Amino acid sequence: MTDRSSLREQRRSEFVTTAMRVFDRKGAANTSLRDVIRAMNHGKGVGMSVFYYYFKSKDDLIDACVRTYLASYVDNVVDILQNPDLSVQEALDDICPHLVRAIWKMDVIFADKANWYNYLSTNSNVMEGFVRQIIDPLSKALDRWLDRDDLPQTQLIQTAGTRTVAWLMADGLSSIVSNGRGAAGNPQIREVVRQRVRESVSFFSQLLGLPLKPPAIALS
Amino acid sequence: MTDRSSLREQRRSEFVTTAMRVFDRKGAANTSLRDVIRAMNHGKGVGMSVFYYYFKSKDDLIDACVRTYLASYVDNVVDILQNPDLSVQEALDDICPHLVRAIWKMDVIFADKANWYNYLSTNSNVMEGFVRQIIDPLSKALDRWLDRDDLPQTQLIQTAGTRTVAWLMADGLSSIVSNGRGAAGNPQIREVVRQRVRESVSFFSQLLGLPLKPPAIALS
Repeated sequence: MTDRSSLREQRRSEFVTTAMRVFDRKGAANTSLRDVIRAMNHGKGVGMSVFYYYFKSKDDLIDACVRTYLASYVDNVVDILQNPDLSVQEALDDICPHLVRAIWKMDVIFADKANWYNYLSTNSNVMEGFVRQIIDPLSKALDRWLDRDDLPQTQLIQTAGTRTVAWLMADGLSSIVSNGRGAAGNPQIREVVRQRVRESVSFFSQLLGLPLKPPAIALS
Repeated sequence: MTDRSSLREQRRSEFVTTAMRVFDRKGAANTSLRDVIRAMNHGKGVGMSVFYYYFKSKDDLIDACVRTYLASYVDNVVDILQNPDLSVQEALDDICPHLVRAIWKMDVIFADKANWYNYLSTNSNVMEGFVRQIIDPLSKALDRWLDRDDLPQTQLIQTAGTRTVAWLMADGLSSIVSNGRGAAGNPQIREVVRQRVRESVSFFSQLLGLPLKPPAIALS
């Protein structure tokens, strides 16, 4: 990367960090570009032309937020799945805080389903790319847990194999997560997020045939 | 509908029926428009200009095939789900032949994943529309089976509710179905389709906590 392109990445990343902080308060849909550029530069703000030098539009900024956020989420989850010392429950306990943050952040960015589908219709490959990065380590982790009798050999695993089960886990999870309405600005947001985590853990328990406990979730 | 638009629909429908028959032999990707128009009119063929009077392109024809095919699939499945006399296993036995046909036809149209994602990226709303039409009758059927003790009250159903479970069934099914490679022209197609039905039934059994038998599947 040249100095120039690395400076560009750094500036874009400042916009992303600032935007995510501003979105947290009232959701991306209710946040104007003006709100974001005013919050830049430690609250001293930058000019609108600076924004347009680095981004094509508000949608471009939102896309950068999604990609940045999901990339770090995937990295964290993959690290946990690759740790050979963890049991299923321990891996779940470690993954859950990242999952909660991911649900929360996606909700903040896509306050309602229309925004989400709108994004998906033009960026389905982005989401799919992230899901694919998780499938491989997840199926390897399932194989490892089966070998160690940490996971029961269900009829489903015998019929479909661990890779298909990994896909079912990932698809079911995104179905549960995206099913809820937007939580940004919702006074019940903590309860909404907790409920989706409980549903996800219940789904994994049922699918794997292994009782799993929903981890305690601290939501600041 | 005016006579003119109904004539138009009838002509389009003749193209769709013919195309699906031709696709069956070697898959949509390996079928040229010329193959389709030659097979029209009981094998006497029509001119290319006739085709372009009714369709914009081969993609437009493929889209019409998908919509026609899925609409009839959804109608059949919804009818079965709404029949109050059927048990879970009976409903599954009745749905499976339609499911097999759907898997087969989608494979014939989208011989490989690239074609499928390409279609989805511009038509995600079409697929989603069809899935949505099934969710409502499916969750009502689950409620009915629970009331009759035909289905166990699992932890998952208690935590997530029947509507979320219906979504999980639909999403998991499309994940299993779309996971395989194209079957058109594959000498193993019967085995591929049978395997996916076995995986789907295994998935439903595990998710619902109810042992279900894969129905006998006649594949002509």
